[in-house]
Amino acid sequence: MSTLPSSVIVREVGLRDGLQSIATVLPTAKKLEWLRRAHAAGQREIEVGSFVPARLLPQLADTAEVLAYAQTLPGLIASVLVPNLKGAEHAMAAGAALMVVPLSASHAHSLANLRKTPDEVVAEVARMRALRDSSGSKAIIEGGVGTAFGCTLQGQVSTAEVLRLMQALLDAGADRVSLADTVGYADPAMVDDLFGRALKIAGERLACGHFHDTRGLALANVYAALRLGIGRFDASLAGIGGCPHAPGASGNAATEDLLFMLQSMGVQTGVDLPALLALRADVADWLSGEALHGTLWRAGLPKTFFNQHAS
Amino acid sequence: MSTLPSSVIVREVGLRDGLQSIATVLPTAKKLEWLRRAHAAGQREIEVGSFVPARLLPQLADTAEVLAYAQTLPGLIASVLVPNLKGAEHAMAAGAALMVVPLSASHAHSLANLRKTPDEVVAEVARMRALRDSSGSKAIIEGGVGTAFGCTLQGQVSTAEVLRLMQALLDAGADRVSLADTVGYADPAMVDDLFGRALKIAGERLACGHFHDTRGLALANVYAALRLGIGRFDASLAGIGGCPHAPGASGNAATEDLLFMLQSMGVQTGVDLPALLALRADVADWLSGEALHGTLWRAGLPKTFFNQHAS
Repeated sequence: MSTLPSSVIVREVGLRDGLQSIATVLPTAKKLEWLRRAHAAGQREIEVGSFVPARLLPQLADTAEVLAYAQTLPGLIASVLVPNLKGAEHAMAAGAALMVVPLSASHAHSLANLRKTPDEVVAEVARMRALRDSSGSKAIIEGGVGTAFGCTLQGQVSTAEVLRLMQALLDAGADRVSLADTVGYADPAMVDDLFGRALKIAGERLACGHFHDTRGLALANVYAALRLGIGRFDASLAGIGGCPHAPGASGNAATEDLLFMLQSMGVQTGVDLPALLALRADVADWLSGEALHGTLWRAGLPKTFFNQHAS
Repeated sequence: MSTLPSSVIVREVGLRDGLQSIATVLPTAKKLEWLRRAHAAGQREIEVGSFVPARLLPQLADTAEVLAYAQTLPGLIASVLVPNLKGAEHAMAAGAALMVVPLSASHAHSLANLRKTPDEVVAEVARMRALRDSSGSKAIIEGGVGTAFGCTLQGQVSTAEVLRLMQALLDAGADRVSLADTVGYADPAMVDDLFGRALKIAGERLACGHFHDTRGLALANVYAALRLGIGRFDASLAGIGGCPHAPGASGNAATEDLLFMLQSMGVQTGVDLPALLALRADVADWLSGEALHGTLWRAGLPKTFFNQHAS
């Protein structure tokens, strides 16, 4: 038998990665209800929005307001995505606990998505770190290495380049890094290989895995990373989300399915799954007409679930 | 890195487990086209039907005819499900290469589904073996232990009971055994544990894993079994299938998604995946109105797929 982590954090990214990828602009009040109920169900890390210009992502124009509310929820670590120094300034001014800076290891994807080369993003992280240190902010800087397993635009992305950029992010002052399969190209063997190599470089500073279910492998990929001891994964309620600049990509790992897998295996997550399924049902109503994903909501929990496993 | 098997057989069960679970009665000519094209795409093990009374499963009433056609396809191992001695007689008379005898480790499910206790099924296998040996047939007898991870009727199914019944099947003369998550209750840790224990008892006679994607874990479960060296898995094109006596159960592992995972990892399967996806599209037309599953058909193969991997 393998040894899995005894507890795992599932970081909810539906409010950011999810909502930015769909047409529906969810009203702020609904976002606050989502946050309140996700927190009440036990979620303690939630990405609440993105500090990008509102004209680019009108769905996330209320990020500062959502973040302010998130800070009233006890014990919640609210993260935001920041694409550049200006975004980081806003995020720190708004009191974000964690800033995720996206870097795309695919040069083609980086230029299309961020209008910068990956090394320009690394340089921006160094500036964010300097600003953070001089401003007295305690915001954690996480460098998120995307298209780490391949890219719909460029095709192959070399492992050596992914690892070089990960190291460069750490050298530039990122507190920690994560690896993302932005377009759903990863398989469990690739995860086993890349996360294995990345752990040798980053150790515990490799803080998160972000998998998409585009081709049905998100949970198998999580399981491969879990076996290496990775203890934090991004996921999106109802599997909403994807990258608008990566054609064909759709569907983050569904939070509820991932939590089910973990809890079924006896891995602690701190989340009340029936409460989260009830929230999922309401979010599905709010997003009526959008493509939603996941399987657990249809089948329900197994009869044996509550006998065997706590949350 | 883990070591995975260098090649794996995906046994197609859509024509049996799949078709028996849906309302549409697929015309025999379509079944023969499915067989012909699956074989042309490289599939070499296909479960073609079930020798049960036609009044119980009108969808499979043409099993003898389908089996006869399957025997004309070079190198194809055509298996059939046989619930009892009478079915085995018919299967052997029709020249089946492999007979799968279902046994349910859940007593409640066994009585509901097979009208026999699990031990009565074991006794029937002993009679099949005696008949096979006396008749000169070369048909392999595979005992399929279902509800091995739990049951929608009974709830918990004890591991000790699953292993006892597996051993009893081997003792009664089954040539090999398989373990099935009939109702989608398994998780990768359970698979790791149960298959690990079963391998210690049955070794290479533990020949197959049968997983359902009811709660999204089929491919993660396959990956856990692969890491133990299991080299054959059942799957159903478009994920059709399930057990009609297990409420809520639906969706075998989708053949095309499973083949994608294997081939992406560099595991040889011998199957031309684009050809199989084309067949899947036609089968989806034939079964219009039925609930189909799987994700690859929507996303398509990654841009990097053909650079990296042969079939």
